[in-house]
Amino acid sequence: MLLAKVRGTVVSTCKEPSLRGVKFLLVQLLSDTGEPLPDYEVAADVVGAGINEWVLISRGSGARQHEGYVDRPVDATVVAIVDTVSLASGSLYSKREDLS
Amino acid sequence: MLLAKVRGTVVSTCKEPSLRGVKFLLVQLLSDTGEPLPDYEVAADVVGAGINEWVLISRGSGARQHEGYVDRPVDATVVAIVDTVSLASGSLYSKREDLS
Amino acid sequence: MLLAKVRGTVVSTCKEPSLRGVKFLLVQLLSDTGEPLPDYEVAADVVGAGINEWVLISRGSGARQHEGYVDRPVDATVVAIVDTVSLASGSLYSKREDLS
Amino acid sequence: MLLAKVRGTVVSTCKEPSLRGVKFLLVQLLSDTGEPLPDYEVAADVVGAGINEWVLISRGSGARQHEGYVDRPVDATVVAIVDTVSLASGSLYSKREDLS
Amino acid sequence: MLLAKVRGTVVSTCKEPSLRGVKFLLVQLLSDTGEPLPDYEVAADVVGAGINEWVLISRGSGARQHEGYVDRPVDATVVAIVDTVSLASGSLYSKREDLS
Repeated sequence: MLLAKVRGTVVSTCKEPSLRGVKFLLVQLLSDTGEPLPDYEVAADVVGAGINEWVLISRGSGARQHEGYVDRPVDATVVAIVDTVSLASGSLYSKREDLS
Repeated sequence: MLLAKVRGTVVSTCKEPSLRGVKFLLVQLLSDTGEPLPDYEVAADVVGAGINEWVLISRGSGARQHEGYVDRPVDATVVAIVDTVSLASGSLYSKREDLS
Repeated sequence: MLLAKVRGTVVSTCKEPSLRGVKFLLVQLLSDTGEPLPDYEVAADVVGAGINEWVLISRGSGARQHEGYVDRPVDATVVAIVDTVSLASGSLYSKREDLS
Repeated sequence: MLLAKVRGTVVSTCKEPSLRGVKFLLVQLLSDTGEPLPDYEVAADVVGAGINEWVLISRGSGARQHEGYVDRPVDATVVAIVDTVSLASGSLYSKREDLS
Repeated sequence: MLLAKVRGTVVSTCKEPSLRGVKFLLVQLLSDTGEPLPDYEVAADVVGAGINEWVLISRGSGARQHEGYVDRPVDATVVAIVDTVSLASGSLYSKREDLS
């Protein structure tokens, strides 16, 4: 999985039928120091993540391991909202402090 | 999924038999600011996307999660035509404004 | 899928048993302007492609969606010989002109 | 698989239900000379790896080939703790010496 | 598949149980001119490759298409020892000459 930050939403009316009801978030990938990388993903959201929250994204077939998603043409999914990232060198991120 | 822009078509007569009837689009990947990236994909089209439209592509096994595609040797598919991309910092793309 | 150009062959006697009878082509990936990229693949050939022909390669599990290939340890396959690549800005490639 | 070094942990309360009980490690990818690369992964841990240990990570569907993980949305897993890396040019890493 | 050269071995005692008995080789990826690339893989060996031999590696789910490997958390496997690489521009590699 990779760390990412929610930046916005992508809306589509004309899409593969099984994608109806799937919410697409544009998430920015983060480096291991928490800086935004040039890479992003448009990921399905199965955890209700909000703007600016740090999340974990799973890609590839892992992105479809969720009830009702096995047959959907999705290759990236937001699978967790991050509470804390703790490194040996110290705390990298804490949701509580980030939002305060 | 990644944002991409439809730039053209690829035609092949001699191909793996199950690819008959599959329409191949050449799509240019887009950055998170909407700029063209050097990367492209030749993607199967299952939504009827047109030249210059912004689309979402799904890659890997996700590209075959569409009726009749499970056994086709496809690794990239156009799965949605994008209406809007809305970021916290403002609107990145709106199909209506793009075509007007 | 990606555009590639056939450059040669790879031969192996000692290999995973199910690879017997599989023809391996070394193909050079092409950019969206038809220029050779530094990247290449050694791909199984299921369409009988020849030296210098433009082809489409499929990678990952998509490379095994061909009769008799599902259980072979292959991660890249030449799945089509390209006839034409037509972009909104003009023709990028035509097999007929390329060979004449 | 790739060599990586364990740097810390990622904690999430709100996550895809099947991820309950999965421990997430932030691991830094290592070059073939043992230097840290800019790339990292947040990987599930199934071997009980500790901070600063060298490990092997498996990515993609390979990351779910562990009892109870097949249906979890995981795309990277720590699958081994490395004892030694021995190259023709000499020893690159030995856990015993690293910890002494 | 990609061309690679065997450089050494990786040994692990504490690993995912199904990896017992799997031999791990560190292989250096090669460019299309036979030069070493910065990228490497730690790959399972199913063909008995030796130090400095040129091999083909298969990655992703393709790496598990070998008897007894389907359920092992492996994402890269040495699937062939290369005899020759012949390009339109001439011979790139011949195992016989390389070893003589």
